[in-house]
Amino acid sequence: MSRINVIIYGCGVMGRLMTKALLEKKSFKIVGAVDVDPLIIGRDLGELLSPRKKLGVRITSDAPGLFSRVKAQAVVLTTTSHLKSVLPQIEQCLKARLNVVSTCEELSYPCRRSPGLTRKIDDLARKYGVTVVGTGINPGYLMDTLPLTLTAPCLRVDSIRVKRMMDSSKRRIPFQAKVGTGLTQKEFRRRIDNKIITGHVGLLESINMIADGLGWKLDKAVEFPPVPVITRKRTKSGLGVVEPGKVVGLISRATAKSRGKDVITLEFIAHANVRKQYDEIIVKGVPNIWERIEGGVHGDIGTVAVTINTIPRAVEAAPGLVVMKDLPPAIAAS
Amino acid sequence: MSRINVIIYGCGVMGRLMTKALLEKKSFKIVGAVDVDPLIIGRDLGELLSPRKKLGVRITSDAPGLFSRVKAQAVVLTTTSHLKSVLPQIEQCLKARLNVVSTCEELSYPCRRSPGLTRKIDDLARKYGVTVVGTGINPGYLMDTLPLTLTAPCLRVDSIRVKRMMDSSKRRIPFQAKVGTGLTQKEFRRRIDNKIITGHVGLLESINMIADGLGWKLDKAVEFPPVPVITRKRTKSGLGVVEPGKVVGLISRATAKSRGKDVITLEFIAHANVRKQYDEIIVKGVPNIWERIEGGVHGDIGTVAVTINTIPRAVEAAPGLVVMKDLPPAIAAS
Repeated sequence: MSRINVIIYGCGVMGRLMTKALLEKKSFKIVGAVDVDPLIIGRDLGELLSPRKKLGVRITSDAPGLFSRVKAQAVVLTTTSHLKSVLPQIEQCLKARLNVVSTCEELSYPCRRSPGLTRKIDDLARKYGVTVVGTGINPGYLMDTLPLTLTAPCLRVDSIRVKRMMDSSKRRIPFQAKVGTGLTQKEFRRRIDNKIITGHVGLLESINMIADGLGWKLDKAVEFPPVPVITRKRTKSGLGVVEPGKVVGLISRATAKSRGKDVITLEFIAHANVRKQYDEIIVKGVPNIWERIEGGVHGDIGTVAVTINTIPRAVEAAPGLVVMKDLPPAIAAS
Repeated sequence: MSRINVIIYGCGVMGRLMTKALLEKKSFKIVGAVDVDPLIIGRDLGELLSPRKKLGVRITSDAPGLFSRVKAQAVVLTTTSHLKSVLPQIEQCLKARLNVVSTCEELSYPCRRSPGLTRKIDDLARKYGVTVVGTGINPGYLMDTLPLTLTAPCLRVDSIRVKRMMDSSKRRIPFQAKVGTGLTQKEFRRRIDNKIITGHVGLLESINMIADGLGWKLDKAVEFPPVPVITRKRTKSGLGVVEPGKVVGLISRATAKSRGKDVITLEFIAHANVRKQYDEIIVKGVPNIWERIEGGVHGDIGTVAVTINTIPRAVEAAPGLVVMKDLPPAIAAS
C-alpha cells in the first residue's frame, strides 16, 4: 500500500503521541491538524512535541476548511470518550470522504448502547464511501478483540475472563491521579460519587463485543463502581509516598451473565503495589485457553500503536461503521 | 447469520473430526460428503463416527454431481497437504460457486512459493464470486496469524520468535509415530532422508505470512531438517517404552533473516519428555510482547476448530484466494 495521508484531529496528549509515532513511520504522512484550544491554534503541530520540530503542519480550528484544502485518506480522532460529543466531528470527516480511526471509547462498540447513533454514523459512512472505527488498547484490543481471537482454536466457549494487572506507579502522573493514588478512602468515594474518578472506560463496550462475537444473548451486563485499593505499607508513587490506610489505586470490574451463569468477567487492576504486571485471558471451554502477556502492555503506547496500525485496515475496509472484531488484525505498520 | 450448509470433502481422520464437531453446532448443517476411498463410497458419513450415527449423508466420489444436486455455501476440504494435488478439487468447488476452507498447508500462504497457482486460484474464485482460504492450527493461526495479531500494540517490531512445546505422548498414536517415537537415531535419519518423517509442515508458509504482514523483505528463509530428540531415560509413550539412546520426538525449526539479522524464528518441539506444554510468542520491538498459552493448544482440536470457525468469515469475505491475516478473526462459532 502506498503512503496514507493522515490528519490529526485533537492535539492533546494522545494526539501528540500519535503525531510522534506517525513521524517514525514511512507508511503515513501527517498533512493536517485540528484543535479547538486557542492557545495552540495557528501554531505548528511540531511545536507541541518534545523536542520541538518544524513539521509545516499548522493547527487549525476549521476542520471543514482544512479537509477541503488537503488531500488525505484518514483522520486520527482523539478528542473525547463520548459518542455524542464526537458525533459532529465524525460527520465533518465523513462528509469530506475521510476514513475515521478514533480512540473514542464509546465508538468502539456502540450498537448496543447507542443503536440510533450507530445507524446514523453507519448510514453516513456508507453514503460517503468511507469507514469509521473506534479502537485503542482497550476497548478495542486487549479485553475484546484479543480474547475473541483466542477462541479460534475452541470448539466450544463457556466463559471468558480477562484480567489486566498494572503497576500504576510506572505510568504517567495524570494516570496515577486518575486511579486515586494518595487519596483518603473518603475522598476516593467522594470522587467516585462526583464521577471525577471513573475507573476504566469501556468495559461494557468490551463485554458487548465479546457477547455478540460469540453469539451470546446476555441476561445482563454490569459495570461496578471502582473499588479503592488501600495500602498497608508506605508506598512510593509518582505523587509522593502514600501512607498506610490510603489509596494506591483501584479495581474496575464488569461482569455479564447468560442463562443465569457468569460468562464474561473483565477486571482492570491498577495500583502502586502491583509487583508483577500482566494481561491474562482465560477461556473456559473445549479446549480451555489460558493466555498471558507477561509484563502487560503499556496503555498509552498500546493505544497509539493499535490506533495507528488500524488505519490501513480502515482505509481498505468496506464503507460503514465497523468494529475491531470484524476487521482483519491490525498489524504493526512500518 | 443463518445456518451454513457445508460439504465434507475428504473423509479421513480430519474429515471425521470436522464432521463430529460440525454436528455439535447449530450454525452449520452437513449436506454432503466426498471421498475417493472405495471402502467408504456409498456409506453414510455417520457410519465413520464413533459411536456410529445415521446422518442421511451418503459419501460419494462424484463431487461435481453432488455439488449440482445439493444447496451448499461451503466445502471443508481436508484431502492433502500439497497445493498441486488439491488444485483439481478446489476447481470443482469454485465452478460450483462453493466457498472453500481447507487444511491444505501449502494453501495457507501460497503466493510466495506458488505464485502461478495462487493467481490461477484467485482468478477462478473471483470469476465465480466465492472465497478460498487455507487454515488450521498451524499454518493458519498459532505461528502466523496470532503472532501478527500480537503486534497490534507495537510501534515497532524487530523480530518474532514462536515456540510450540508439545508433549507428544499425549497425542494420537499416528502423531507419535510421525515424530519418530521409539526409533533408533539411524532409522530416524533414514526416514528423514526418505521424507517419511517431514517434521511440521508449513513453517515456511508461516514465515512468509509474518514477513509480508509486517512488510519485511527477507534475505532468505530456511526450514531445517527435523532434529531427533534422544532420551537419556526410559520413557513411556503411546508406542511403548522408549529405551535410553532412542528417539522420543523431534524439533522442527525454521528461521528467516532480513538485512543480515535473524528476524523470524519458528520452533516446533514435540517429544515424550516435554513436561510443560506451552505455545510462546516473543515479539521484540517497542514495546516487547511476551505471550504464552500455558498448556498449549491441542493440534487436532485446534485445527478442527480454527477451520470450522473460519467458515463464516470465508462466506462473508470478498471473492478471491484470501489468507488468514487478511480475514477478520475466526471466532468460536455456536
